[in-house]
Amino acid sequence: MRMVDVIEKKRDGKVLTIEEIQFFIDGYTKGDIPDYQASSLAMAVYFQDMNDDERAALTMAMVNSGDVIDLSNIEGIKVDKHSTGGVGDTTTLVLAPLVASVGVPVAKMSGRGLGHTGGTIDKLESVEGFHVEITEDKFTKLVNESKVAVIGQSGNLTPADKKLYGLRDVTGTVNSIPLIASSIMSKKIAAGADAIVLDVKTGNGAFMKTIEEAEALAHAMVRIGNNVGRKTMAIISDMGQPLGNAIGNALEVKEAIETLQGKGPKDLTELVLTLGSQMVVLGGKAKDLEEARALLKEAINNGSALERFKQFLENQDGDSSVVYDVNRLPQATYQIELPAETDGVVTEIIANEIGVASMLLGAGRQTKEDSIDLSVGIVLNKKVGDRVAQGESLLTIHANREQVDDVIEKSRASISISDNGSAPTLVHKVITE
Amino acid sequence: MRMVDVIEKKRDGKVLTIEEIQFFIDGYTKGDIPDYQASSLAMAVYFQDMNDDERAALTMAMVNSGDVIDLSNIEGIKVDKHSTGGVGDTTTLVLAPLVASVGVPVAKMSGRGLGHTGGTIDKLESVEGFHVEITEDKFTKLVNESKVAVIGQSGNLTPADKKLYGLRDVTGTVNSIPLIASSIMSKKIAAGADAIVLDVKTGNGAFMKTIEEAEALAHAMVRIGNNVGRKTMAIISDMGQPLGNAIGNALEVKEAIETLQGKGPKDLTELVLTLGSQMVVLGGKAKDLEEARALLKEAINNGSALERFKQFLENQDGDSSVVYDVNRLPQATYQIELPAETDGVVTEIIANEIGVASMLLGAGRQTKEDSIDLSVGIVLNKKVGDRVAQGESLLTIHANREQVDDVIEKSRASISISDNGSAPTLVHKVITE
Repeated sequence: MRMVDVIEKKRDGKVLTIEEIQFFIDGYTKGDIPDYQASSLAMAVYFQDMNDDERAALTMAMVNSGDVIDLSNIEGIKVDKHSTGGVGDTTTLVLAPLVASVGVPVAKMSGRGLGHTGGTIDKLESVEGFHVEITEDKFTKLVNESKVAVIGQSGNLTPADKKLYGLRDVTGTVNSIPLIASSIMSKKIAAGADAIVLDVKTGNGAFMKTIEEAEALAHAMVRIGNNVGRKTMAIISDMGQPLGNAIGNALEVKEAIETLQGKGPKDLTELVLTLGSQMVVLGGKAKDLEEARALLKEAINNGSALERFKQFLENQDGDSSVVYDVNRLPQATYQIELPAETDGVVTEIIANEIGVASMLLGAGRQTKEDSIDLSVGIVLNKKVGDRVAQGESLLTIHANREQVDDVIEKSRASISISDNGSAPTLVHKVITE
Repeated sequence: MRMVDVIEKKRDGKVLTIEEIQFFIDGYTKGDIPDYQASSLAMAVYFQDMNDDERAALTMAMVNSGDVIDLSNIEGIKVDKHSTGGVGDTTTLVLAPLVASVGVPVAKMSGRGLGHTGGTIDKLESVEGFHVEITEDKFTKLVNESKVAVIGQSGNLTPADKKLYGLRDVTGTVNSIPLIASSIMSKKIAAGADAIVLDVKTGNGAFMKTIEEAEALAHAMVRIGNNVGRKTMAIISDMGQPLGNAIGNALEVKEAIETLQGKGPKDLTELVLTLGSQMVVLGGKAKDLEEARALLKEAINNGSALERFKQFLENQDGDSSVVYDVNRLPQATYQIELPAETDGVVTEIIANEIGVASMLLGAGRQTKEDSIDLSVGIVLNKKVGDRVAQGESLLTIHANREQVDDVIEKSRASISISDNGSAPTLVHKVITE
């Protein structure tokens, strides 16, 4: 087989065979196929697309390009959740103990990641003593006993995807549905998921700017998952403004605890119930989304969800008393309010800009070497659709420096106030097939 | 400027500026822009095309990526001819002295090339003593005095095209009209042409299989030429069967001499008159194609064309007596006839296959290091449309080995005989704008 023939076949709009796709991914992973042929094929795929079979084959070829996590010693259907990214996304912190409390096993492998705040592990490390340096045996034991545990990412997962993603980034081939969908799905499958729930964000803070684009991507991923034997569902959710109120590591843990107590922000609570219902159905613990939602609400109301979070923190040596006293979490020295300059209704809070403001405070990292300040961040006091009076606080800046003019300027520029406006729709679509 | 932005712009169907195209070609030539970005852009061009301005800019950027031959010391309008390749194409050998004899300067820089036979220089070296190792000053003097000279290729012409062509060959981006057209035109312009005549071949022996494809390429090149100030014309000619009768180096020189004497094959003579007429018009020696053709016919009839060939050979130390005694050219030891197995009409002679047969005899080279046997080759005794009787010779194999079963087999497989058939149209279109 010659790579140039594979490229020309796709260029001419023909369907590649499983063998051809494997030939490409194997050769590219090994370095036998050079970048210039991979980028040329990626551009051909950009124009000619891939059908469902090709997408499934590409996904599985990337899965098999490296290590695949074996979760077979963990009982039950392992459901993983993936979000296409956003600002102030506290859902994982809430979802993990919540669905665990109704019996769905959450065996989470997580990384630190780059971004406006840290990754899930960074956030959890706000809890004193908590750590993810546990053996695989302990990890398995904890998930079987408590239905939830988090372990640091290890192994060489989907090297083909890593290499191809880096190449696509500099060759104008990022924005291709088959390539995005197979990239995301390959990572989830390599991490051992039996079933997958996807939260595809749309809006100015998201990669997919329109609902149509987000829907196309969601359908593509759901179809790949189901075609390769992983039950998959998705929702399309709004990422115009940040999700919930908190953007920051300890601040998001506090918000997660409040949400598990039934006192969280309305949008975060709703998103968690929507995604959680899908996880519970896919995990086989409810027959439909309605029954699942009722189970989850009950777990919040009767305290078992919060209790499960406490147990989870204890299991991994964390100071679990934080669930009853959030003030034990790291606190920033200064709390600075941003007052509204005018009466009106909040019509816009640009998620990305608020994210950048929280990075200025030190909540996130730009490179792997950056250290994170777990205590700092921003808490929104008003969200889109809320009325505000002149002088009332729009948001609170939690800082470890007194001078925060840069953060104030960035925050103010990201918020618009007008005569009238309304809260945006949070969940645009639920995609179950 | 970032290359990824240039790629995305073209990917999205937008028009690149001159600056963006220069940025690409300059960076790629220097190695600042990697192959994987160049191949990705080439694939985007394959799908999104380039308009006339972009094609002109790409051509001139490639011209200026290396040396440009300065022919300003040669008087008159320097008209160059380019053929997109074929089998048994003896036109250059005939055209050069023919148009020179009516006053059009032919300052030919030529290479040895790979293929079924050698390049123009190899063919001319069949004439004892002839060589192209002359100084630039002598080259200029000869063209000014005799209107025709050939010099070996020197300098670093269009390195960007060389690099890009090599990349396109392995990334499925060869077959793109804007990329083919700019590649050909950049080489002609860098070689110093003021005006260009193009012979675009079509048919099974050619790169462009259909007349429509050939026409699109011809129009693209004519437009590039005229847009960058080089008057350009083209024809679309048939390359289903080999052109003329001879395929081989000395055999083609012999055929050229016969054609200059007015005794050449009909198709070769017609093609030479058609292309020659365009060269004479572009060279300013006739007001239209009709007048030009009359001049050329006259030059053949009155012997001045043959005389000019003689002078050209003498000028470069060749044994010019060959023009009166073609038996002084190298002769192969064996002449083997291929008899027809049946009565009928020749309906097909697959040009490429006959070309391969002549390579088997040693007439061409596959790698630069291969040596060439100037005396060997094939002479067709019948062409498409000719009647043949069983036992009559279809072609003569000129070989330096007695055993030529492989050549016979290849030759026989390339020729079809049927009940009826007719000679193909030789010149499909004349494109003057």
